[in-house]
Amino acid sequence: MKTRQDCLALDAADALAPLRQQFDLPEGVIYLDGNSLGARPKAALERARDVVAAEWGTDLIRSWNKAGWFDLPGRLGAKLAPLIGARADEVVVTDSTSVNLFKALTAALRLQSAETNRKVIVTERANFPTDVYIAQGIAAWLDRGYELRLVDSPDDLHAAIDTRTAVVMLTHVNYRTGYQHDMQAVTAHAHAQGALMLWDLAHSAGAVPVDLHAAQADLAVGCTYKYLNGGPGAPAFIWVPQRHQAQFAHPLSGWWGHATPFAMQPEFAPTQGIRRALCGTQPIVSLALVECGLDIFAQTDMAAIRAKSLALTDLFIELVETRCAAHPLTLVTPREHARRGSQVSIAHPHGYAVMQALIERGVIGDYREPHIMRFGFTPLYTRFVDVFDAVETLTDILDHARYDADAQRDAVT
Amino acid sequence: MKTRQDCLALDAADALAPLRQQFDLPEGVIYLDGNSLGARPKAALERARDVVAAEWGTDLIRSWNKAGWFDLPGRLGAKLAPLIGARADEVVVTDSTSVNLFKALTAALRLQSAETNRKVIVTERANFPTDVYIAQGIAAWLDRGYELRLVDSPDDLHAAIDTRTAVVMLTHVNYRTGYQHDMQAVTAHAHAQGALMLWDLAHSAGAVPVDLHAAQADLAVGCTYKYLNGGPGAPAFIWVPQRHQAQFAHPLSGWWGHATPFAMQPEFAPTQGIRRALCGTQPIVSLALVECGLDIFAQTDMAAIRAKSLALTDLFIELVETRCAAHPLTLVTPREHARRGSQVSIAHPHGYAVMQALIERGVIGDYREPHIMRFGFTPLYTRFVDVFDAVETLTDILDHARYDADAQRDAVT
Repeated sequence: MKTRQDCLALDAADALAPLRQQFDLPEGVIYLDGNSLGARPKAALERARDVVAAEWGTDLIRSWNKAGWFDLPGRLGAKLAPLIGARADEVVVTDSTSVNLFKALTAALRLQSAETNRKVIVTERANFPTDVYIAQGIAAWLDRGYELRLVDSPDDLHAAIDTRTAVVMLTHVNYRTGYQHDMQAVTAHAHAQGALMLWDLAHSAGAVPVDLHAAQADLAVGCTYKYLNGGPGAPAFIWVPQRHQAQFAHPLSGWWGHATPFAMQPEFAPTQGIRRALCGTQPIVSLALVECGLDIFAQTDMAAIRAKSLALTDLFIELVETRCAAHPLTLVTPREHARRGSQVSIAHPHGYAVMQALIERGVIGDYREPHIMRFGFTPLYTRFVDVFDAVETLTDILDHARYDADAQRDAVT
Repeated sequence: MKTRQDCLALDAADALAPLRQQFDLPEGVIYLDGNSLGARPKAALERARDVVAAEWGTDLIRSWNKAGWFDLPGRLGAKLAPLIGARADEVVVTDSTSVNLFKALTAALRLQSAETNRKVIVTERANFPTDVYIAQGIAAWLDRGYELRLVDSPDDLHAAIDTRTAVVMLTHVNYRTGYQHDMQAVTAHAHAQGALMLWDLAHSAGAVPVDLHAAQADLAVGCTYKYLNGGPGAPAFIWVPQRHQAQFAHPLSGWWGHATPFAMQPEFAPTQGIRRALCGTQPIVSLALVECGLDIFAQTDMAAIRAKSLALTDLFIELVETRCAAHPLTLVTPREHARRGSQVSIAHPHGYAVMQALIERGVIGDYREPHIMRFGFTPLYTRFVDVFDAVETLTDILDHARYDADAQRDAVT
């Protein structure tokens, strides 16, 4: 079993270790929740000051051109593209993941020619809820017989995708379990059945290597405020490959997707290219900060990040299973590397209480019903010694805990 | 005719004048484009620093509760509500105006009971384009016979609203002309014909008094980055009166509109109240800055703002018509107070070139096809002497201009 000294040695030998200096991390905290909200790049503070004081305050309306505000969704998309195997002109950073899912799924249903009798949208019951809700919203509103097929387990996916399937819509890495789908295999099977494949990369972009073109995926969306460290609620992204751009159409046809937005024509005429995925004016301050996170990724590559991610999660699993063997912990995240994201989820009957105790002692993960403690590992700033110290704290809590079943919610006393 | 001295005296007597100190306005600029992007409240810089450094950087994920991020759309909505005659629990600040229009218009079509044969959405051809585009997107997507009736003039509106009208969707103050609809009369006529009334307040909120409840309007949306000074592209707002909230439904059914978003249920169940209008995670940094603008409005009231706005626009019109009488200028904005917003639009055959010359000399307005120079007046920071000096510069440009018709676009040489 690795010692704390071993972990310090791993950090000393880690080529990514210097990147941690580019993040602001609070004293006394081991932050293992970058899968929910990424830590702050130090550069974001100065960038916020620039955008607010100089671009907004001094240059005012002129910044739409002078500071490139109008082109920001595409410029950030081009920086994000290499992380997901996309071309630079296929991604925009804009709106929320939910709104982008709406655009992507409505567009996908339209790409399936209207005359086919494909009426089924396949997804997982365990998908992140907003994905399921958006699909339900679309099916209900279109009122043309679309139905959602909610698959109970990844193992059931193969059989669930058939010749009635219009679109398969999956989150590549599951938010709760950390399970990673085989993007290439699932996409190939969807295509073999004549379905389109829409991927949600919320827990993938910046976390695991993604190659949308190699997988021949059809559409994708994702989040910038988790592993990409774009800031709280920062605008999401949407990917439309060149081969689908000319036919890509969605009902959120706002003026930012118009061919000539400032000609102020009373007929919607979509622009060419990826800007079709835009709708309305974007929140520039939040949007601009996304660049600070992306600029850190530009200094490394996803292969190096993935190698460290697997080393961190392997270490965490090994230490927990060795040191907490006496406690009723269940590993939820797959042990197999190819099926694992950059998080480790562990179930415990008193998971909520244990996580609260961890947070009180400065080890910040989070909790998802039922019983699941989530620990996210961000190779850009998570150290091996952090993993060691986090397990040390977890072990101490579990070894000394009494659970107060009378509390409103179970608590460690 | 008023002299510069008169204008200085008006400023000295202006009860709103001290509020200008709460804005950062660049040296050497007369900013008359607050109808496009409002100036920066000084407090926004410190607020941005707090949100980025402390709330994101230090408190990280804990800020969703500790800093109230999750409740921000409603908390800001409650502060905005008094400016538009809404109740505190009827407004959320969220998403873009285009996305909110999509929610409001789909919800309005659904509020019209399905069995009626009302298939017409009435709006103006001269409405802000995104409003028209969103309506077109909805009509095409739903494919249930909805049609758009584009009215060519406000005078034709009365006849265009009839018993086939499902929804009347209008921008209260026109972005190009500054024409202000009679909200009460138009709403009453729409209701008399059995139609619902949806108002876009993009150029009204913070600019002119609005009383949605007095007018008995049905739904409204609007913008925070113009007269409300919320920051570039800051999230927009949506108003749903209590009487419609229980039936308010739209297809952007994301997790922020769910009754129990963290129960992670696989069935969408809308929450009660105004949070139904939410969809996905919001861009917190941009959203938080909206409060700085609203906090300035809390120090005055819309009656005082309106009185000064009319005094400013009256003065501008008077000075332009007197001093530039020799030039081919046409007043586009209504002379009648009740029909005027807080801007003045003036057409000139070489409007584009004249506006470029004005901007080069530090008088910042903007230009809209065809031929229209727009000047926005923001009583919170526009002084009477600014109006005088702006007209002085305009007069000088017009008196000495030669227009270069050979330039790619006409230019003052």
